Amino acid sequence: MPTLILVRHGQSQWNLENRFTGWWDVDLTEHGVAEAIAAGRLLAERGILPTTAFTSVQLRAIRTLHLALEACGRLWIPEVKDWRLNERHYGGLTGLNKAETAAKHGEEQVHVWRRSFDVPPPPMEDGGPFDLASDARYAGLDVPVTESLKLTIERVLPYWESTILPQLAAGETVIISAHGNSLRALVKHLSGISDDDITGLEIPTGQPIIYQFDDAMQPGERRYLKDI
Amino acid sequence: MPTLILVRHGQSQWNLENRFTGWWDVDLTEHGVAEAIAAGRLLAERGILPTTAFTSVQLRAIRTLHLALEACGRLWIPEVKDWRLNERHYGGLTGLNKAETAAKHGEEQVHVWRRSFDVPPPPMEDGGPFDLASDARYAGLDVPVTESLKLTIERVLPYWESTILPQLAAGETVIISAHGNSLRALVKHLSGISDDDITGLEIPTGQPIIYQFDDAMQPGERRYLKDI
Repeated sequence: MPTLILVRHGQSQWNLENRFTGWWDVDLTEHGVAEAIAAGRLLAERGILPTTAFTSVQLRAIRTLHLALEACGRLWIPEVKDWRLNERHYGGLTGLNKAETAAKHGEEQVHVWRRSFDVPPPPMEDGGPFDLASDARYAGLDVPVTESLKLTIERVLPYWESTILPQLAAGETVIISAHGNSLRALVKHLSGISDDDITGLEIPTGQPIIYQFDDAMQPGERRYLKDI
Repeated sequence: MPTLILVRHGQSQWNLENRFTGWWDVDLTEHGVAEAIAAGRLLAERGILPTTAFTSVQLRAIRTLHLALEACGRLWIPEVKDWRLNERHYGGLTGLNKAETAAKHGEEQVHVWRRSFDVPPPPMEDGGPFDLASDARYAGLDVPVTESLKLTIERVLPYWESTILPQLAAGETVIISAHGNSLRALVKHLSGISDDDITGLEIPTGQPIIYQFDDAMQPGERRYLKDI
């Protein structure tokens, strides 16, 4: 039975500092490392062993993948990294502390930026401290200046359809190590969640989510691996 | 200028214990981890930054690659793992301590197995403690039972020609994290070393070797990155 494993990266330094991260390349904390290893051990314990892997081009998701795979004895499987699995781009909020942003723009406005489906934050300014123009990993790519969840979905889903789903259909056990919002995009699609409800759905860090697919490649219910 | 970086994995537990390792999947020691990180830092210092990566399906080479890439800020580049870059398969010597093997088979015989170009060690027996028949990473592969250096070269070079060289020719800076004998295979080919001389050539662990290629894709001289 084709099986999909979703893992949100372990705690990052900016999760801890409560800063908007988006495409900025922040590393895992020690706690985040432990979460990633625990995710891999749980996969091994439950005997759900990935055979192929996808992740973003961001350090926190790649390291989570590697730590989890190593912990379940699967570091040798193929892996593909793609920016389409990146976190939502937080535009001009990138790098800001969430409390400071609320003090500056008002709680309500920040809530809209964080939780509305289709309102993107203000764009990132060129040449600011979190500008990605000189980041070699995005050379040749028209890097977004900001993204709503809707815009995030619009780059995650075509990648899912074209590249990941065929692997599942071929019988692979696929692991995707990614981010809160790129995983929301997938969960919304797979579990048929409405635009209104998806923004309130929290994807916990380091907690593998499992979907099993039937012969017609229809996903079953969303389950946490810990509950299986 | 197309650039090739070769790195032999850092010290493994069985390097330390002086045991024949081959295809057995032994992890790095703490010293090996430090060597891999130092290799990555040297790449960053010298400004030779890989854009695409190849490694074997063995933990010690994969971890060396990941540690080195992370240390030079390049964990996000594409990577491909292939068994053709694995260490030489040591057959029935796998797992044996080199001193014990010499005591049992004689110094001279062990020297022949280790240093002759085309005499393979005795084959690995089915069902022994180091049998790889049940290892999922080799499912569907006709796993060798033993390899000479000559046999190792016969699977490394076709992979080099078909898969790695075209990446270099396309202008990529390629890093290969591999093993003493799979790297000997490449160095023999690229530096035109004779069958007699290659078996005595030591490839040091964690010490990047650089080849630069001209417009006709002919390799220049072999240099250690530390000397550049």
